[in-house]
Amino acid sequence: MNDTPNPTAGLIIIGNEVLSGRTQDANLRFLATRLGDRGMPLAEVRVIPDVPDVIIATVNEMRARYDHVFTTGGIGPTHDDITSECVAAAFGVAWEPHAEAWAKMAASYRPGEFNAARQRMATMPRGATLIETTVSIAPGFSIANVHVMAGVPRVMQAQYDSLAPTLPRGRPIVACAVHATGVQEGRIAAGLSAVQARYPALDLGSYPYYRASGNGVAIVAKGTDAAAAAAAIAEVTALFIELGHAPVAGEPPAA
Amino acid sequence: MNDTPNPTAGLIIIGNEVLSGRTQDANLRFLATRLGDRGMPLAEVRVIPDVPDVIIATVNEMRARYDHVFTTGGIGPTHDDITSECVAAAFGVAWEPHAEAWAKMAASYRPGEFNAARQRMATMPRGATLIETTVSIAPGFSIANVHVMAGVPRVMQAQYDSLAPTLPRGRPIVACAVHATGVQEGRIAAGLSAVQARYPALDLGSYPYYRASGNGVAIVAKGTDAAAAAAAIAEVTALFIELGHAPVAGEPPAA
Repeated sequence: MNDTPNPTAGLIIIGNEVLSGRTQDANLRFLATRLGDRGMPLAEVRVIPDVPDVIIATVNEMRARYDHVFTTGGIGPTHDDITSECVAAAFGVAWEPHAEAWAKMAASYRPGEFNAARQRMATMPRGATLIETTVSIAPGFSIANVHVMAGVPRVMQAQYDSLAPTLPRGRPIVACAVHATGVQEGRIAAGLSAVQARYPALDLGSYPYYRASGNGVAIVAKGTDAAAAAAAIAEVTALFIELGHAPVAGEPPAA
Repeated sequence: MNDTPNPTAGLIIIGNEVLSGRTQDANLRFLATRLGDRGMPLAEVRVIPDVPDVIIATVNEMRARYDHVFTTGGIGPTHDDITSECVAAAFGVAWEPHAEAWAKMAASYRPGEFNAARQRMATMPRGATLIETTVSIAPGFSIANVHVMAGVPRVMQAQYDSLAPTLPRGRPIVACAVHATGVQEGRIAAGLSAVQARYPALDLGSYPYYRASGNGVAIVAKGTDAAAAAAAIAEVTALFIELGHAPVAGEPPAA
């Protein structure tokens, strides 16, 4: 077993529309899953407003703290899209036309249509590397360990897929689960705690569920050691049986 | 018009299951909407893991920064439920049996069933005030400006409803919207920017949408001045018409 620590990731969701409840974020879960699969788990997420000082301070705090930082939102052409210039300010570099992005975008629009608003989308922190996709004319970009992506999920997902080959990998985070209807957390807590103590490198989570077919609890073991996760879940399965329940492997069915 | 600033709110979502992508958070949007309606808008959200030092530091940073702070998750009976003791540590107060919670919980279980794990749910920071509901035997609690609630959405929502009468109100944040299919953000950006400049107290957001019936853009004006929001959206509506589009009042239909 390799003891090199896994690289860490942070996510900054930039957008008043998420903080106001207008928009249900869908990017956190996508990135959390993909980053866990590649062994660079998400350690923290911040949802912040379209306010320059807040964006600049948050980018600087997170890029110092995590190996890689992803941002979503605020890279379109309108006045509320200020992520790119704030990232430049966070790095203390010029915010200037990116020659390659500018040329490609200029060639994609009809004469006169590559206007000032669209030109802003080709304006980036000096030193940025493009994140290009086929689903959007305007690219995302990376600067050092910060990766700036769109807020629209289908664009963000394509940008992540384009970016992923350049990201480090760690030992993948794997999960093993068991669930049983009728289980109450308060009755299994002591037994679970003992299992967790025997597998200190695993993260053993207990998650109640509520279904028309019955309420119960799912236990999920996560970590980089698949055999340990399976062994811990086998112990939890035995605990469920000992308490008179009928455990079922895996997560409960979707609600 | 009243110029008292609105009170501010912060939210801390505590749970490895959200950071790993296992669970889609549903609490952010509920709280964002309810807090906006009462004029105490959500200014920042953090999603953090079940790690004591991280929870303690985040609670202390957020409670200093915002008028009210809400936490969701980590108040059940299992080993991964550590929010309550971390909040006590953040405030530097004892974590001890809460007499009222203890008596009520002890009375709710059959003899012998109020075990050590369940007793943890009646153990709280000294000085905590209970947040009680009919949907859960175990209460949430408030200490100073920090409100500690469950992660399970139906329990959290009942706890919020129970807590809400004790929270301050500000001028409600109201929204006015217009949308049109076929609009491209890059063509309306300059006009929108001019509208935003004329209504500096409003937050004018531009949100592309993608529907089988057609793609377009929704413009939402938010603020505490309903008349200004309506006037700004009237100007955006005129802008849409000028550019040859057919604006429709309100948000686009759900996808």
